[in-house]
Amino acid sequence: MLREISLFGEMGGILSLERFRLDKYADFPKWYHEILKHAKIVDTRYPVKGMNVWMPYGLKALRMIQKIMINLLEETGHEEAYFPTMIPESVFSKEKDFLQGFGGETFVVEGTMTKKFNEKLFVRPTSETVMYYMWNIWIKGRKDLPLKMYQVVNVFRYETKMTHPILRVREIMSFIEAHTAHATSEEAEKQINEALSIYKKFFDSLLLPYFIVKTPPWDTFAGAEYNYDFITAMPDGKGLELGSVINLGQKFARAFDIKFMDSDGVTKHVYQTCYGVSERTLGAVIAIHGDQKGLFLPPIIAPIQVVIVPIARRDEQDIIEYAKKISEKLKKAGIRTFLDDDPEHTPGWKYYFWEMKGVPTRIEIGRRELNNNTVTIARRDGAKKITVSINDMVDKLRSIWIEINDYLRKKAIEHLKKMTIITYKPEEIGKGVKGLIITPWDGTKECADKLEEITGKQVLGEIIESPIKLPSLQGKTICNNKPDRYALIGTTY
Amino acid sequence: MLREISLFGEMGGILSLERFRLDKYADFPKWYHEILKHAKIVDTRYPVKGMNVWMPYGLKALRMIQKIMINLLEETGHEEAYFPTMIPESVFSKEKDFLQGFGGETFVVEGTMTKKFNEKLFVRPTSETVMYYMWNIWIKGRKDLPLKMYQVVNVFRYETKMTHPILRVREIMSFIEAHTAHATSEEAEKQINEALSIYKKFFDSLLLPYFIVKTPPWDTFAGAEYNYDFITAMPDGKGLELGSVINLGQKFARAFDIKFMDSDGVTKHVYQTCYGVSERTLGAVIAIHGDQKGLFLPPIIAPIQVVIVPIARRDEQDIIEYAKKISEKLKKAGIRTFLDDDPEHTPGWKYYFWEMKGVPTRIEIGRRELNNNTVTIARRDGAKKITVSINDMVDKLRSIWIEINDYLRKKAIEHLKKMTIITYKPEEIGKGVKGLIITPWDGTKECADKLEEITGKQVLGEIIESPIKLPSLQGKTICNNKPDRYALIGTTY
Repeated sequence: MLREISLFGEMGGILSLERFRLDKYADFPKWYHEILKHAKIVDTRYPVKGMNVWMPYGLKALRMIQKIMINLLEETGHEEAYFPTMIPESVFSKEKDFLQGFGGETFVVEGTMTKKFNEKLFVRPTSETVMYYMWNIWIKGRKDLPLKMYQVVNVFRYETKMTHPILRVREIMSFIEAHTAHATSEEAEKQINEALSIYKKFFDSLLLPYFIVKTPPWDTFAGAEYNYDFITAMPDGKGLELGSVINLGQKFARAFDIKFMDSDGVTKHVYQTCYGVSERTLGAVIAIHGDQKGLFLPPIIAPIQVVIVPIARRDEQDIIEYAKKISEKLKKAGIRTFLDDDPEHTPGWKYYFWEMKGVPTRIEIGRRELNNNTVTIARRDGAKKITVSINDMVDKLRSIWIEINDYLRKKAIEHLKKMTIITYKPEEIGKGVKGLIITPWDGTKECADKLEEITGKQVLGEIIESPIKLPSLQGKTICNNKPDRYALIGTTY
Repeated sequence: MLREISLFGEMGGILSLERFRLDKYADFPKWYHEILKHAKIVDTRYPVKGMNVWMPYGLKALRMIQKIMINLLEETGHEEAYFPTMIPESVFSKEKDFLQGFGGETFVVEGTMTKKFNEKLFVRPTSETVMYYMWNIWIKGRKDLPLKMYQVVNVFRYETKMTHPILRVREIMSFIEAHTAHATSEEAEKQINEALSIYKKFFDSLLLPYFIVKTPPWDTFAGAEYNYDFITAMPDGKGLELGSVINLGQKFARAFDIKFMDSDGVTKHVYQTCYGVSERTLGAVIAIHGDQKGLFLPPIIAPIQVVIVPIARRDEQDIIEYAKKISEKLKKAGIRTFLDDDPEHTPGWKYYFWEMKGVPTRIEIGRRELNNNTVTIARRDGAKKITVSINDMVDKLRSIWIEINDYLRKKAIEHLKKMTIITYKPEEIGKGVKGLIITPWDGTKECADKLEEITGKQVLGEIIESPIKLPSLQGKTICNNKPDRYALIGTTY
């Protein structure tokens, strides 16, 4: 199953594992880079800026994450389709705000080495235009609505912001974008709520805390009425947009002339929504759940849920055999298991190594376990080791994972609190402070400008939902009027 | 679960179903085009030639096919990775034959709308160069080998041959490409055999018959030593390459300087292989198993394995309830089931419709079935309907699918025989004849040229394995010497 490519050669053995004791809060970029490298998530040495190679271990975790989202979408009646990667210029430029918003960062194909095309092809930065071109053909009547589709694709954005592996890339390799069309504005509104609820379930299952903000009008997705963003905080205090839920209104419907014959016999434009998440989710999982020992993967997405480490001398083959038996038993129960019986490393080395890889539980097997038909379970969260009979092993693991989930969830909320300043007096904080800032706001551009000037950060939106309890609004905003909402302020990836 | 987008509006109801009685042998392009449209496999109205939109039903079947191949690769120790879509010109052009072979048909990105890049980016037509660039970094020692990787990606080829949906496209949306590196030429040779065996299992499970040919040297994959092709025949008599297995030797290893320190302390270049299949496999399934009623999907990949059609008047709600109970029972058994209780169509219309969609088995439920706790099972292969108790239903379906598999396998071999001419005297056949031609050959270019001149077709390779028993070699080839192999000759997609 899992093989570690050139693992030991590159890492230089146990020394580098001991050296991995890094504090993600002290130097997040270094911590993040080192863990991506040592745990083999992505390889950043590919010679195009912002495009990385996904290694098998990282990709396995990402595939698990994709599966969670795909199930949530399928359960709620979204159907998977696939639209081509390349979009003719004439189609891409039909919606003017969209062209304006994405034109400059879209990769363009003008031909092959030997031939120039008649029309430029845009490499999709997101698929509104290509999908809606077809929806114009597909949607005819009331019974074609609602239309709920998704696709799992790579998209490309030549962004000028600094790139970071997984977090801000130029080839997004796992964009799960859903698009819907509805007969009425109310139905679209309802769909927005369904999308919010899908995303909440998704991030909750990954134990990630998030703010939901409504983006200010001047920062709304190109071609949209309004959008919600799910935002979390990274260990360096920067905000990370985890996903967006967008009410497109009728702008694209008008640009692409997507109409249906309503039951009253009148032909009307549809109302549309779209929402997307990417591999950033894994970036957040890595950054938020990881610690000084390295990665810490929630059991639901861990490529290896249990690693078995036999404690045996080379001549104690019976212990290895027992470990194999345990491994088979776990696999049969549907548990993702890896038996590390490599004789070249000590058990201690293996403990360090697999903790660094984020494996949530470890089974240690020695002479005593063999004699008593037991296994000893160690936990990545550092809670006490326990020894259980092999008959209880599977149940025990499952209950430990629930405890580990609780541990990670709580730790993640604490992390978010640590990264967030709630204040009525942003002027007292000033610029350069680490973290997200929450402060009263009246929703106006004028007041946002002031907040941005004072904090040196950006108003990301008004907070619709917060995992941290916020005090009730009172007093005055910075602009000296009555606040009716909280602003989330920060710099983002 | 499965919703049919704008299905009735576009199809115009039952009339077009009756009109679907097309003979695939009489006019294959028409048959193929109509079935893709009516069964909603791909939509060809996307405004870029050779790039099609995958509809949910077609994509579901394709996802099933992908799963079969992915399982086969994982079982044999291949690990999934992901390499970027865009390849810098400097990397792409490292292997000269490869550049020569693919350069002209590779899409090139020179920048965005507002910025020209310093270096051109090639959009991958296949990933040798991007992978092997990284392998140069990864592979150090003997223990890094063998390295066996695969990825599931979209690739792009601006081919000048006529495009056909799914069969020859400019965006291949499902390319499953595996790549391996080995310490010795013998190990690479063994890998080629493993790959052949994987592909045989894959096509066998889809009940597709194939010839395996060794491609003539002058037609070998760019940068390779030699390659094998899996070739089948389409209903118009053309050949279709289903997949390739390629021995790359050390050419790429030299171009990318991929070396390892062997156990004898000497640094050596690796030996490489690669092999790939695409969505063409589904194209072949559609073309070979389909018939005058439409699609016929093997149960293993059918998005719907059983459709339930209640035979009930609008007031007979108890029959609908019984059908729902049956549907739940089947789903619980892991059977992909769809209950078609749409009151707007007659049972007869539904029979036609779901046969056209290729659903292998249908359950009919009326008053008699309800009263007796039975179901009636009808089969897409036209064999006799049977009525069984609901307790026997699941087992019976599974045994019927085995019979359907046999039926499809036999029919596919008959199809291949019908599309293949085995002859010692190709000169008597002449040009313009429909089908593949098998004739004795000595392997030389000279003799191949003669065969191509006589038949007006192309020598696709020497036959290594044939699903049709070939007579033992005797007599003389067209070039008047002793034959030592059979040539497969044809025109291809």
